[in-house]
Amino acid sequence: MPDTSLLKTFVTPSETPFVIEHVAEEFTSLCPVTGHPDYGTITLRYQPVKPSAKDRKRAQAGGPELSDGPGCVELKALKTYYQSFRNEGIFYEAVTNRIRDDLVTLMKPVWLQIITNWKGRGGIYSIIRAEHGDVPLHFRGR
Amino acid sequence: MPDTSLLKTFVTPSETPFVIEHVAEEFTSLCPVTGHPDYGTITLRYQPVKPSAKDRKRAQAGGPELSDGPGCVELKALKTYYQSFRNEGIFYEAVTNRIRDDLVTLMKPVWLQIITNWKGRGGIYSIIRAEHGDVPLHFRGR
Amino acid sequence: MPDTSLLKTFVTPSETPFVIEHVAEEFTSLCPVTGHPDYGTITLRYQPVKPSAKDRKRAQAGGPELSDGPGCVELKALKTYYQSFRNEGIFYEAVTNRIRDDLVTLMKPVWLQIITNWKGRGGIYSIIRAEHGDVPLHFRGR
Amino acid sequence: MPDTSLLKTFVTPSETPFVIEHVAEEFTSLCPVTGHPDYGTITLRYQPVKPSAKDRKRAQAGGPELSDGPGCVELKALKTYYQSFRNEGIFYEAVTNRIRDDLVTLMKPVWLQIITNWKGRGGIYSIIRAEHGDVPLHFRGR
Amino acid sequence: MPDTSLLKTFVTPSETPFVIEHVAEEFTSLCPVTGHPDYGTITLRYQPVKPSAKDRKRAQAGGPELSDGPGCVELKALKTYYQSFRNEGIFYEAVTNRIRDDLVTLMKPVWLQIITNWKGRGGIYSIIRAEHGDVPLHFRGR
Amino acid sequence: MPDTSLLKTFVTPSETPFVIEHVAEEFTSLCPVTGHPDYGTITLRYQPVKPSAKDRKRAQAGGPELSDGPGCVELKALKTYYQSFRNEGIFYEAVTNRIRDDLVTLMKPVWLQIITNWKGRGGIYSIIRAEHGDVPLHFRGR
Amino acid sequence: MPDTSLLKTFVTPSETPFVIEHVAEEFTSLCPVTGHPDYGTITLRYQPVKPSAKDRKRAQAGGPELSDGPGCVELKALKTYYQSFRNEGIFYEAVTNRIRDDLVTLMKPVWLQIITNWKGRGGIYSIIRAEHGDVPLHFRGR
Amino acid sequence: MPDTSLLKTFVTPSETPFVIEHVAEEFTSLCPVTGHPDYGTITLRYQPVKPSAKDRKRAQAGGPELSDGPGCVELKALKTYYQSFRNEGIFYEAVTNRIRDDLVTLMKPVWLQIITNWKGRGGIYSIIRAEHGDVPLHFRGR
Amino acid sequence: MPDTSLLKTFVTPSETPFVIEHVAEEFTSLCPVTGHPDYGTITLRYQPVKPSAKDRKRAQAGGPELSDGPGCVELKALKTYYQSFRNEGIFYEAVTNRIRDDLVTLMKPVWLQIITNWKGRGGIYSIIRAEHGDVPLHFRGR
Amino acid sequence: MPDTSLLKTFVTPSETPFVIEHVAEEFTSLCPVTGHPDYGTITLRYQPVKPSAKDRKRAQAGGPELSDGPGCVELKALKTYYQSFRNEGIFYEAVTNRIRDDLVTLMKPVWLQIITNWKGRGGIYSIIRAEHGDVPLHFRGR
Repeated sequence: MPDTSLLKTFVTPSETPFVIEHVAEEFTSLCPVTGHPDYGTITLRYQPVKPSAKDRKRAQAGGPELSDGPGCVELKALKTYYQSFRNEGIFYEAVTNRIRDDLVTLMKPVWLQIITNWKGRGGIYSIIRAEHGDVPLHFRGR
Repeated sequence: MPDTSLLKTFVTPSETPFVIEHVAEEFTSLCPVTGHPDYGTITLRYQPVKPSAKDRKRAQAGGPELSDGPGCVELKALKTYYQSFRNEGIFYEAVTNRIRDDLVTLMKPVWLQIITNWKGRGGIYSIIRAEHGDVPLHFRGR
Repeated sequence: MPDTSLLKTFVTPSETPFVIEHVAEEFTSLCPVTGHPDYGTITLRYQPVKPSAKDRKRAQAGGPELSDGPGCVELKALKTYYQSFRNEGIFYEAVTNRIRDDLVTLMKPVWLQIITNWKGRGGIYSIIRAEHGDVPLHFRGR
Repeated sequence: MPDTSLLKTFVTPSETPFVIEHVAEEFTSLCPVTGHPDYGTITLRYQPVKPSAKDRKRAQAGGPELSDGPGCVELKALKTYYQSFRNEGIFYEAVTNRIRDDLVTLMKPVWLQIITNWKGRGGIYSIIRAEHGDVPLHFRGR
Repeated sequence: MPDTSLLKTFVTPSETPFVIEHVAEEFTSLCPVTGHPDYGTITLRYQPVKPSAKDRKRAQAGGPELSDGPGCVELKALKTYYQSFRNEGIFYEAVTNRIRDDLVTLMKPVWLQIITNWKGRGGIYSIIRAEHGDVPLHFRGR
Repeated sequence: MPDTSLLKTFVTPSETPFVIEHVAEEFTSLCPVTGHPDYGTITLRYQPVKPSAKDRKRAQAGGPELSDGPGCVELKALKTYYQSFRNEGIFYEAVTNRIRDDLVTLMKPVWLQIITNWKGRGGIYSIIRAEHGDVPLHFRGR
Repeated sequence: MPDTSLLKTFVTPSETPFVIEHVAEEFTSLCPVTGHPDYGTITLRYQPVKPSAKDRKRAQAGGPELSDGPGCVELKALKTYYQSFRNEGIFYEAVTNRIRDDLVTLMKPVWLQIITNWKGRGGIYSIIRAEHGDVPLHFRGR
Repeated sequence: MPDTSLLKTFVTPSETPFVIEHVAEEFTSLCPVTGHPDYGTITLRYQPVKPSAKDRKRAQAGGPELSDGPGCVELKALKTYYQSFRNEGIFYEAVTNRIRDDLVTLMKPVWLQIITNWKGRGGIYSIIRAEHGDVPLHFRGR
Repeated sequence: MPDTSLLKTFVTPSETPFVIEHVAEEFTSLCPVTGHPDYGTITLRYQPVKPSAKDRKRAQAGGPELSDGPGCVELKALKTYYQSFRNEGIFYEAVTNRIRDDLVTLMKPVWLQIITNWKGRGGIYSIIRAEHGDVPLHFRGR
Repeated sequence: MPDTSLLKTFVTPSETPFVIEHVAEEFTSLCPVTGHPDYGTITLRYQPVKPSAKDRKRAQAGGPELSDGPGCVELKALKTYYQSFRNEGIFYEAVTNRIRDDLVTLMKPVWLQIITNWKGRGGIYSIIRAEHGDVPLHFRGR
């Protein structure tokens, strides 16, 4: 199963709200029915949780330190987590909902979007969109 | 006539609302007047019905199981259904309204859009948009 | 003068509102000042009038039948109508307003847009937008 | 200095509101500091003033007649006016505001936008947007 | 450290509100962890502060004069400031927030956006968006 | 089976050698194994046979007249011939060789190329090239 | 019939061989069978005739002077000549050969190519290539 | 190890030479050093072996029959063979040479090219080209 | 007149032959007939003269030093030279031949190409190619 | 100075000739005159030296082992070597010739090309091409 223990966060580096987007173009998993590989692009877009005073202090005291607490997902950890789907037989919809749930549990973001674009098979390609929290209107449907 | 018996659904895999989009780039039917082939792209976008408790249990109990009840249209079934238009003489507007009606009847979605883009003939190409239910503003006109 | 007698309609094939768009990429007329040809793309977008019960019956009784009454403009008729501008000396703005008026008179649509894109002359290209009725917000300015 | 006497108008050809857009891709002026040429694209978008009854009559009586009164800027005059910036040393922001002011003074439009896109120098390119009147929401920021 | 003393402004050249956008396509800094170079595009979009009567007079009296007071950031100064990040080890999020803070402190704009697009590493590319003040709806999420 | 009786020619309209290319973007046939539709683009490029003195005279005497003799394939006939593959179960390679053979038999061209581009299935797309006669070097491999 | 009397030349302005290419994107004529308009792009590429000593002198003595003798076709004249096909019923192949012959007769070029690209009808678009003289290998088939 | 037993051929369906190209856009293997996934596109281009009289007869007697003998690689078999690299740790150059050797051994083609395009890591992307036999000049370096 | 005194060279920095290409996208001059501005892109491609032993020594002794002797044209000087055409009334062909002659006279290159691409007027755009010396086959016609 | 000690090779993995291409899109150095950064793309294309029997054996005996001897440049080493130009003041031509010389000295390739594409400054962008050995015709000028 995809390995959430690979996911790590760093403390949100600003108290002013801002928006982070990571687009992973090389996602691959397996079709649970045929066993053939699926290929897709995973877009993660979110507003990170506001850092607690304690976390903020801890971050300022030292260098970048990773943890499992609320904050921003670290990029290399995110990549490794995505790679853990490589030999997983799992449907488009399940991948999308799974990633949303895992990242919401980890980061506790103000809001979050997962958009998965799947390369076509037999002339049909698919896009699945899942959200958490109050996504601003101007990001919805994108 | 296009064959709705080909259409099958699976139980909506999440209780949190999400949006599914399937873009079929290789649709073809026949012009009812000239008999010449028409080519188009069919975009289906919808928010699936919330699964009933009973359906949810049934789905968790076993593997992916297809039925004719409300839920998400299965991708291969959708493709085969689209292929059943191949030798049908039918107007652009009728294709669009027909597919909307067939899929609404089948899936009982919260909302649904069908957008058909038809390749040009004699320098004019056409786009037909049909909707069902309360399509969110940010998806309208797209 | 452009020939509106070429325009024909068919009965709106659905009572559920939907949107039709025809993009004609090969429009040409003449500049009324210099006599040089102008080239443009004409986009027609509209929501057709709801069919009357009588029209609906008439349409269901027989095959596709063309008339001059309210409904949807027939594609080949539209094309021929556009071609009747070929040797007309007429300004961009006049073409746009003229087509809007002719099609509104013919089809009695719920709402309608005409957008004309004119290829550049001397490094300037132009877009003229004219509307009729209550165009939905998500189509305005497009 | 750029020559506003080159600008001419014709009477707005319709009483129904509509929108005109002219995109000039070959604008050039000089940097006031270095003297090097600047290159840009100037987009003018506006809703023309409603024609007065008197103007409307005058226009219907004869052929296209140019004046300095309110109405639609004539395309060739606009082009010549733009060309009068060719050897002018003037900043991006000043060009944009200047053109807006000159055209508002001339045409008395309901609303108007000027968007200037400047080709990059040293890896930075710029876009300046100036407006007059109540620009519809769907044109703002475009 | 990035050198804010390089930043200079000129007096906002118009009392009518307008919007300025500078897109710097050749930004580079270093990853604080690996020391490898990062490459990105920095978009700055803002509505400049309204000029004070005093500043307006000063500007009209002489030629273009640069200062450290509120106004519009000078383009060459902005470029040099961006170049001062070249050998800085700094995270994506920190670059974005830092530039926003430095430019807000300098220019006192009505509102301001910083959008940083980072070229991919290992198949993932990132976009960070930070804002200040009341950014109009039509610019948000862009 | 594809119907060669649909193919018609007209007399080559020039005695000076020249080259004709027709690109048909909407070809479709069926996979002989799975029965699923295949979609492709068929490029036909050839140098037509030099007209005989007799043919040349016949052509000059009257209007355009179609026959089954050597010459140039008529465009509408070619289109109808291609359409006759619509419900044929046939491999990529066989389509390509078949069309080459049918057209060579019909037109007796100096040289001829058939290039078929097939849309991808499962992430693999294919191009088949077949030739007849002495194709000039600058057209080979294109 | 297309009017060759519109064509004018100027004396080749250099004794060193060079190559001229004019691409006319807005060509239109009529289909001789259906009467519907055809649209295409006409590319003319040629190496102009070497100027005679006498012509060279005449050209140096005065300003640019147009004639019917060998040389380079004047651009505005070429455009007007192309426009004279506007209401002509003529096949693709005939247009191409006709233009080649008219321009060869006029200009006496060292070599010349005419390439006509015709917009698609019913999903097929066409390219016709005609040549005169010894076209260099690197221009052939382009 | 990649599994060559998956590869199957069918008898070359024509005695006239022709060229086959299969482009697989979704190839993935692992970096032997870091274990991270590599993604690439594999282009196979070749002229198939001429069929023996015996093979030709056998093919004409029945339907499509697969074997391990010389001929054309079957598309689905090729895809499965490519998929067998999915969890293989192997360098770019080794993949390219390996595929060439496996396919040459299997098909005995007249000539063959393998071109692998690898998506970038750290801003560098790579293309490896390997060949067998006498590749025609117009395909070399492509 | 365009000012060749602006052109400066530096000593060819290598004795091994190599090729230099400079593409200037913002060239502008005036039409000698109408006075309207022309816009184009000027491509200069050449193999620089081999440096003399004396020049080579001089270059190695000091920093980059500009002269009027044979060598490589300095980039900023080239730009300023191109800018000196800004208000010159001159035909496409004359610009092209003039630049070739000026640069050949200055640099004494082994071979040189000038390709000028002119933006369209009235739907026709033009490309003029002039050469000097023995341009390698693979650069000809490009 | 750029650091050649960073460059490492591995033994050419095949005795059959093949071609390797690495495209580095994120090269940056400094202009030696202004100190401003230059940005470019460096393409390296080469046919590696044939491995000696001894090297071949050594490579087969163990895993991938890097050295300074002839062979193929290791990708990460190449990247680090390119990064060592980051704060170097050096001309386009010098970068190109320097990289060619360093890589030829290291790898002893059969042939090699270096093509550098430099982003524009002031509207001019540049391409420098340097070669070593007998580059096949189909790669020249690319």
